[in-house]
Amino acid sequence: MTKKGKYSTIHYQNYLGLDALLDTQVLRSEQLGKPAHEEMLFIITHQVYELWFKQIIHELKSVIEMFAEEKLDERNIGSVIARLDRVEKVMQLLIDQIGVMETMTPLDFLDFREYLFPASGFQSVQFRMIESLLGLPEDKRMTYHNQKYSSVFPEHQQKELADIYANGPLFDWVNKWLERTPFLKTKGFDFIKKYKEAVQRMIEKETLAIRASEYLTAAEKEKREAMLGTTDSYFKSILSEENHNELIKEGKKRLSYKATVAALFINLYRDEPILHLPFQLLTNLVDIDDLMTSWRYRHAQMVMRMLGNKIGTGGSSGHEYLNKTAEKHKIFADFHTISTLLIPRSQLPELPAALKEQLSYHFTQTEKKNNPS
Amino acid sequence: MTKKGKYSTIHYQNYLGLDALLDTQVLRSEQLGKPAHEEMLFIITHQVYELWFKQIIHELKSVIEMFAEEKLDERNIGSVIARLDRVEKVMQLLIDQIGVMETMTPLDFLDFREYLFPASGFQSVQFRMIESLLGLPEDKRMTYHNQKYSSVFPEHQQKELADIYANGPLFDWVNKWLERTPFLKTKGFDFIKKYKEAVQRMIEKETLAIRASEYLTAAEKEKREAMLGTTDSYFKSILSEENHNELIKEGKKRLSYKATVAALFINLYRDEPILHLPFQLLTNLVDIDDLMTSWRYRHAQMVMRMLGNKIGTGGSSGHEYLNKTAEKHKIFADFHTISTLLIPRSQLPELPAALKEQLSYHFTQTEKKNNPS
Amino acid sequence: MTKKGKYSTIHYQNYLGLDALLDTQVLRSEQLGKPAHEEMLFIITHQVYELWFKQIIHELKSVIEMFAEEKLDERNIGSVIARLDRVEKVMQLLIDQIGVMETMTPLDFLDFREYLFPASGFQSVQFRMIESLLGLPEDKRMTYHNQKYSSVFPEHQQKELADIYANGPLFDWVNKWLERTPFLKTKGFDFIKKYKEAVQRMIEKETLAIRASEYLTAAEKEKREAMLGTTDSYFKSILSEENHNELIKEGKKRLSYKATVAALFINLYRDEPILHLPFQLLTNLVDIDDLMTSWRYRHAQMVMRMLGNKIGTGGSSGHEYLNKTAEKHKIFADFHTISTLLIPRSQLPELPAALKEQLSYHFTQTEKKNNPS
Amino acid sequence: MTKKGKYSTIHYQNYLGLDALLDTQVLRSEQLGKPAHEEMLFIITHQVYELWFKQIIHELKSVIEMFAEEKLDERNIGSVIARLDRVEKVMQLLIDQIGVMETMTPLDFLDFREYLFPASGFQSVQFRMIESLLGLPEDKRMTYHNQKYSSVFPEHQQKELADIYANGPLFDWVNKWLERTPFLKTKGFDFIKKYKEAVQRMIEKETLAIRASEYLTAAEKEKREAMLGTTDSYFKSILSEENHNELIKEGKKRLSYKATVAALFINLYRDEPILHLPFQLLTNLVDIDDLMTSWRYRHAQMVMRMLGNKIGTGGSSGHEYLNKTAEKHKIFADFHTISTLLIPRSQLPELPAALKEQLSYHFTQTEKKNNPS
Repeated sequence: MTKKGKYSTIHYQNYLGLDALLDTQVLRSEQLGKPAHEEMLFIITHQVYELWFKQIIHELKSVIEMFAEEKLDERNIGSVIARLDRVEKVMQLLIDQIGVMETMTPLDFLDFREYLFPASGFQSVQFRMIESLLGLPEDKRMTYHNQKYSSVFPEHQQKELADIYANGPLFDWVNKWLERTPFLKTKGFDFIKKYKEAVQRMIEKETLAIRASEYLTAAEKEKREAMLGTTDSYFKSILSEENHNELIKEGKKRLSYKATVAALFINLYRDEPILHLPFQLLTNLVDIDDLMTSWRYRHAQMVMRMLGNKIGTGGSSGHEYLNKTAEKHKIFADFHTISTLLIPRSQLPELPAALKEQLSYHFTQTEKKNNPS
Repeated sequence: MTKKGKYSTIHYQNYLGLDALLDTQVLRSEQLGKPAHEEMLFIITHQVYELWFKQIIHELKSVIEMFAEEKLDERNIGSVIARLDRVEKVMQLLIDQIGVMETMTPLDFLDFREYLFPASGFQSVQFRMIESLLGLPEDKRMTYHNQKYSSVFPEHQQKELADIYANGPLFDWVNKWLERTPFLKTKGFDFIKKYKEAVQRMIEKETLAIRASEYLTAAEKEKREAMLGTTDSYFKSILSEENHNELIKEGKKRLSYKATVAALFINLYRDEPILHLPFQLLTNLVDIDDLMTSWRYRHAQMVMRMLGNKIGTGGSSGHEYLNKTAEKHKIFADFHTISTLLIPRSQLPELPAALKEQLSYHFTQTEKKNNPS
Repeated sequence: MTKKGKYSTIHYQNYLGLDALLDTQVLRSEQLGKPAHEEMLFIITHQVYELWFKQIIHELKSVIEMFAEEKLDERNIGSVIARLDRVEKVMQLLIDQIGVMETMTPLDFLDFREYLFPASGFQSVQFRMIESLLGLPEDKRMTYHNQKYSSVFPEHQQKELADIYANGPLFDWVNKWLERTPFLKTKGFDFIKKYKEAVQRMIEKETLAIRASEYLTAAEKEKREAMLGTTDSYFKSILSEENHNELIKEGKKRLSYKATVAALFINLYRDEPILHLPFQLLTNLVDIDDLMTSWRYRHAQMVMRMLGNKIGTGGSSGHEYLNKTAEKHKIFADFHTISTLLIPRSQLPELPAALKEQLSYHFTQTEKKNNPS
Repeated sequence: MTKKGKYSTIHYQNYLGLDALLDTQVLRSEQLGKPAHEEMLFIITHQVYELWFKQIIHELKSVIEMFAEEKLDERNIGSVIARLDRVEKVMQLLIDQIGVMETMTPLDFLDFREYLFPASGFQSVQFRMIESLLGLPEDKRMTYHNQKYSSVFPEHQQKELADIYANGPLFDWVNKWLERTPFLKTKGFDFIKKYKEAVQRMIEKETLAIRASEYLTAAEKEKREAMLGTTDSYFKSILSEENHNELIKEGKKRLSYKATVAALFINLYRDEPILHLPFQLLTNLVDIDDLMTSWRYRHAQMVMRMLGNKIGTGGSSGHEYLNKTAEKHKIFADFHTISTLLIPRSQLPELPAALKEQLSYHFTQTEKKNNPS
């Protein structure tokens, strides 16, 4: 199409490329044997998946681009959140869509399963791109027939996957962005020091109160103390950068110490105006992880239902694979475990007035209290 | 592809035609002006709609084909229901998907809206095919710019739409199938006569009881009688074929008298084994109508949100159109109103033993009652 | 329970008041006749509705309280949004829940319907409280048996409803809050004047371009111009306060002129950092309205399915009532129609640098662009 | 209430016991410290869970009762399916509802978490009743603080749980019902013998074809054969009752051999009219299992998000517990694995005409093929 300017006209059918789009459903069963009614559903469901994958990739790439600009312009953080919200909504659809696929029964599937060999969902490069864009490292992927996973793909797709990772996945950009948080150590306020004191104070005070309680049995007191924890149990790594870095080396943590402290700060002081959106962003990451996990899990259920213990057309047990990866492939696990470090609002170290002012902004004008009408 | 037999191999990417499929997202904003990020969502959402429309058409056509066989083989009724169930699940997805579209804000839409002219969702021929397959007559469609609706489409698509309707939509086939119900007038049992007696008996008995009640005020008694109805209020048309045919002539009813009586019979005696599936089928029709209506309605909400009172790219107020058609375009309305004719199980005419036997079958062997373990 | 301090213990069963809670399901059919299996579903579904209504009321009251404080503390706006988000999630559940109720068939309902007289969903005072908290005026409610709607309720509930309204519903508080927006007329920037100029400029320029186009037919040019509108068609009331106030008098608008201008400003410049949350808040209001409308609509569908054209136990046609109110009872309609006033980002008046600075804040530190790894 | 007959009147508020119901939300935080806004959500969400649990129990008990009658009257199988369908819809709601709970953030939870000790979701006796009604044996439950799980409950609830199990859970009744299937060995048709032959024939034929294929590489041929399986790999236990019983002894299977064969028969010949509903019933069981598993899984995600690695108020890691039990507590696993035994329709042993007749029924009258209009 040449550039005709915006006053050229277009028809719905052409705008959406419907001639091509609706021509891509080719039933193998029809080509190679007896047409199987249900193969249409199988094809269309997977095509819809791939269209949504393309949408997710479109959003993730744009989000990463925004992070990669000189700095993440504050104007953009709203867009980042809006686009991640959209990614979540799409992922939820992908999960719901499994219920449509499950209207095909295992016996129906057998009517055309043999024609699919050796095609397999493992060969969806777009799904791998999503994993890479989010931050799943190649070495965490399970191997496929004892080969590096990406070997499934033709070379140009392998390169695309590698480039995504080299360019920095979302995880890395968020890590870097968090490290730039300026409020953690200001004149007169050392967040992590204050937090440490608060944790110790809280634990001591509560321990005394528990021991003194006249309502708890000895066994209950013990459980109650366990629930409270000690500085060593839950808080050890956040209170010592050294310890944290050790865990990173062991592959147990991934987020840098500085970024972790910033994430904790945002979680604890999220009621401060300018932390609202950063907090929402961190929540998006946890949501997306949970949705990816749920999708793998529901998908595994569906494969189990369709094939039982049989081997999939791709040559391995899809059910088992998906079940194994559901938990292991969490990308933002470090953000999930921030919850462990939270302490009640009532125990939070007070912020100095100057910092509090820095964390606020004013949308409306101050005014006398009165009835709205 | 030549017929290689089933032992040829295929790759996921080719099986799903992904090269073509993922090449159909052409952003007009990119071609004609400044790329608008959100146009991708707009295109993909509509493409997914069209893929699901194709699936729905695939199912509806196969269902009609089964009805059109010499008789609806009883083996098939299970498939008919399964396929209509699937249509419902897909329709539910279409409704849920509106929430994804709504992540685009009105201001975002303005970034590329001008490039779409005069494309419009009204130009989706597949959606019209679904309406036609279900049974929406051309003369019930709203006109489009004062022209017959189908004039929107190129000639070959107009022909396709006309053929669908000529070939008999689902509504007509169900009507015909219901008319073949054999149990309505057997030796010693005239269903509609018995039903008439039961209705009269019920109304008389209840009216007396209401009037005699010591718990109701005069006003409550009046309301209570109104709620009960009279043979003239709710039951008039079912008790007189003449009256029913009059309503058909006036365009107020569409289902034939005989089919209506059969549908009532199925609803009332649906606990009898061989009526289980027919009852499910009738329920499917009401469900599908409700889903279509919900979709139009939610769609109208979305358009309102996007455009406010503005005129759509297709040149008319989409919001208004969709809102108007939501209720008017009900296809299976006659099945909805069957509820008006139901009477409590306790008032149902007893079926003769011979008929009861005819309506049952035996899956398991009789056996003494005992504990399962 | 006396104040034992937090180290007293509690059991799940007591904490949730389960003994009382699970004792409130009393089947009238069991008390007065033959137990009807499905009545349990009917009771529990409605009880769940009422529990969720209580939750919604809890959230709305707290939101109004935050608005009613001396000023809406910027710290609170995040909470307001979070709580309205929750209200939306609950409302979505209420809609989904209708599908559970619909597993009861019309014939099943007849097994116990007669025992319910004259109880009716119209008697849910909590639902009316939600409407009042949002801002539905008493005089907009439909009458109930020709009486003021609230006459359905005992006196203490009538008072509660009246108090809610007198205390100011959410609509009024949002109106007031918008009126306090300080940026609309600053030294060197008169928003509405600039906007007016932009609208005129846009319409003139586009009109010329359309007329000059070599790709459009005469008919298409006409449609295209209609789609564009004139300052008189869409923009009349926003460009003249007098005109707007006229519409308020006629009951066609409800939001004050000043608040409407602020809402437009927020919608147009929502990319500016400190407008992110205000924009989200306005979106919440539109969402809630749409959810309420969807709920009424789906509810009407369900009643139609259950009763057909019969009169409900409350003595009137629930189906008809709900259908009528679905659209009429929109509370935040003025926010829906803001879309009509939007103009493309490319046509937006540029904000002066000083104002732009005022609308931004800084979460991270500026930094050189580079790769994250 | 005395038996006044059905013409006594009732008000919505009383019918639903709203005075009591809406009085059961007692915030511990308010009683023992500073009112925490979010505790209301916590209480109401759990109360809604318990109400739905009661509904599920109501349905499961009624289903078991129908099974326990002298024989499962064929009239009832439709009701059984309808009620299990409803259980599924409710379970889906329970899963969706987790999203509402997740609008509470971990920090919000800390505002009142300390007051809940040692209450815990583990103490929900209704949830255990559902597990027992479905068929989870006590010895499969995880222990709770090293004690038999049921020791959590007061004696009368322990007894209730034990009684449910003694009375026969759904699993046992379905097992028994399947064993009564009469068609498996009739004069001239020994299903399992015919099935065995078909499996062997299929494997042999396909193996030869694979080996002869000119399109497959040696490696592909190998995978393809693995995918096909051997009589020893997938089919071993179904082809030998002895082997099957061995697996039961080892705790690897639970469904009796005879019932397994019947379930396989139903799955393979589900297109036969009178097998439609039995097939639907078996599908319900698999669905319910999947929904229970999904619920545990999503619940575990939510607990992880709320507490991170902290110990729950009940004294153990809820996240870990729920994650572990998600897969382990599958009750109808034997029905899931039936899929492994399915063979394509084209390979199915033909049923003798007499048996085919026995498996059919006739709803409509035969008729000439023609156009419906």
